Amino acid sequence: MSVVVPENQDVLVPLIEAELRRWIGPGENLMELVCLDALFPSGKLLRPILCLESAAAVGGEVEQVLAFAAGIECLHVASVVHDDIVDQEPVRRGRASTSEQFGISEALLAGDGLSMAGHAAMLSRGPADRALAASRVVVDAMRHMCRAMMRETEIREDLSCGVSTALEVIRGKTAALISAACQGGAILGGATPEQAEALRRYGEQLGIAFQIRDDLLPYTADEDITGKAAQSDVANRLPTVPVLLAHEAGTDADRQRLAEVFRDDVDTVTAYREVRDIVIRTGGAEQAAQRAWDCVEHARAALAGVPRPDRLLELAVTAVDRIH
Amino acid sequence: MSVVVPENQDVLVPLIEAELRRWIGPGENLMELVCLDALFPSGKLLRPILCLESAAAVGGEVEQVLAFAAGIECLHVASVVHDDIVDQEPVRRGRASTSEQFGISEALLAGDGLSMAGHAAMLSRGPADRALAASRVVVDAMRHMCRAMMRETEIREDLSCGVSTALEVIRGKTAALISAACQGGAILGGATPEQAEALRRYGEQLGIAFQIRDDLLPYTADEDITGKAAQSDVANRLPTVPVLLAHEAGTDADRQRLAEVFRDDVDTVTAYREVRDIVIRTGGAEQAAQRAWDCVEHARAALAGVPRPDRLLELAVTAVDRIH
Repeated sequence: MSVVVPENQDVLVPLIEAELRRWIGPGENLMELVCLDALFPSGKLLRPILCLESAAAVGGEVEQVLAFAAGIECLHVASVVHDDIVDQEPVRRGRASTSEQFGISEALLAGDGLSMAGHAAMLSRGPADRALAASRVVVDAMRHMCRAMMRETEIREDLSCGVSTALEVIRGKTAALISAACQGGAILGGATPEQAEALRRYGEQLGIAFQIRDDLLPYTADEDITGKAAQSDVANRLPTVPVLLAHEAGTDADRQRLAEVFRDDVDTVTAYREVRDIVIRTGGAEQAAQRAWDCVEHARAALAGVPRPDRLLELAVTAVDRIH
Repeated sequence: MSVVVPENQDVLVPLIEAELRRWIGPGENLMELVCLDALFPSGKLLRPILCLESAAAVGGEVEQVLAFAAGIECLHVASVVHDDIVDQEPVRRGRASTSEQFGISEALLAGDGLSMAGHAAMLSRGPADRALAASRVVVDAMRHMCRAMMRETEIREDLSCGVSTALEVIRGKTAALISAACQGGAILGGATPEQAEALRRYGEQLGIAFQIRDDLLPYTADEDITGKAAQSDVANRLPTVPVLLAHEAGTDADRQRLAEVFRDDVDTVTAYREVRDIVIRTGGAEQAAQRAWDCVEHARAALAGVPRPDRLLELAVTAVDRIH
């Protein structure tokens, strides 16, 4: 009797959380404690849910893919912990970031430990050829992510980098792993090469949409809704897609003001308010939202040849649903 | 025709270096540049050489194992780059450490990139069942290493932790990956389970010996020979095996002075000289050297059932040869 992936996230979330705990341990030493603190309370678990649902979409079973899905979440959280060191981010999901709470060295090592736990989980279940192929996809995505995070350190404060560079960073930083979660889950679930490719494209487009939505939140929602200091990207002088679209669409005066804010040590609150004003007034926010929705449509269209696409079609909308 | 691993490191080193370059790229972006700077000029390449020689010892071929061996070196160098961030180490092998030269964020991300390149290399060559089994061994070793590095942050300044704790840290920080390099190489090279286990034990004992030797260097060699600031462990208040053996063997006055040096902000040069004096006078250095040589003997004895042990028998001695 095969257990088909249940169609309800309320069932998947506790399964994923139990699997994450299984790979980290009960919290008996500093490594486990810091890792557990970074993982829990868990976020939306978008990547492991997409991984499991992608397996289900091609007829796979939960127990074939659960460890792999949990491994991807470990790799994702590891990258977040390290990213918060790079960005000197004190807050994550409304709580102190790992580096803020435990120190930079401890956060760095916990990120490495989480990453290795993720690899161990990914490699833990056969068949060997599928586990190897799926793990390669995820590792390639993580390499892409690392390159993009390094690239991001170079474009800080640089509004001349253009929308295409920001999109390239998004592809690496967010879309690559989401895409690999879908493709890898499909491979482990027994997908044909065509189905695995369809789920790769689905995940890639969804990942771009998801990140643009994330970049938009500071300009569309209250800080306590986003759970992250809304001013964070501005504080870090990161040129995101809405800001770069505003830079393109704005007047010379807008561009000059944006450049000043990104170059100078304007206080963060003032900088955030000015950027927000320009991003909304120039239509940068609206254009970015439109791009995100276009990606959602591309993602849904990619599912054409997939046997059971319903949950993924739905997830593509709900994952981006907070764009107003 | 199978190409048996040549018995000469002069042949292996350029092969490994070319493979490393193949996995990192030509240096066209910041990620590649920082990774290449961390990898080259290369060190002794002990881990990939042991990996290749372990494969050869059970009849394996270079081309089966070369990417895997290069992957292990990437993981090792990634851990060194991160360790130098944790220890705020300005010097590595006589040059500025990666974090000193490029900045902490860049070193952190390059470490992550090197790690992922390592995983990609490890997973790149089949047969799938061997690649999976060998990669699992290495990933488990890396998890052990991460836990040990975290543990090390806890025993800083703590001379009461005892020799057994320091040996436990050594097992994780150094012996685990060296052991996995030997075991993984053997698995990829077609070892029987007994042979793979023998090479695991060989690598573990050799790894412990190698690290004790490294911890001894500040007390037995000139700084320009070690290529690393001799005072570094003392500067970081890391209780190493020779120091803890001296702490056990010394008089109450020795113990009190060691405790003062490790607790107080004595200037590093004075602290180093005092510790060095006590480590040598109490016989801590001599005892540590004896332990290292015991491990070398255990390592050599582990090779009893291995078909072609000659090169590994020799390597066990030369890897630890700078203990006087």
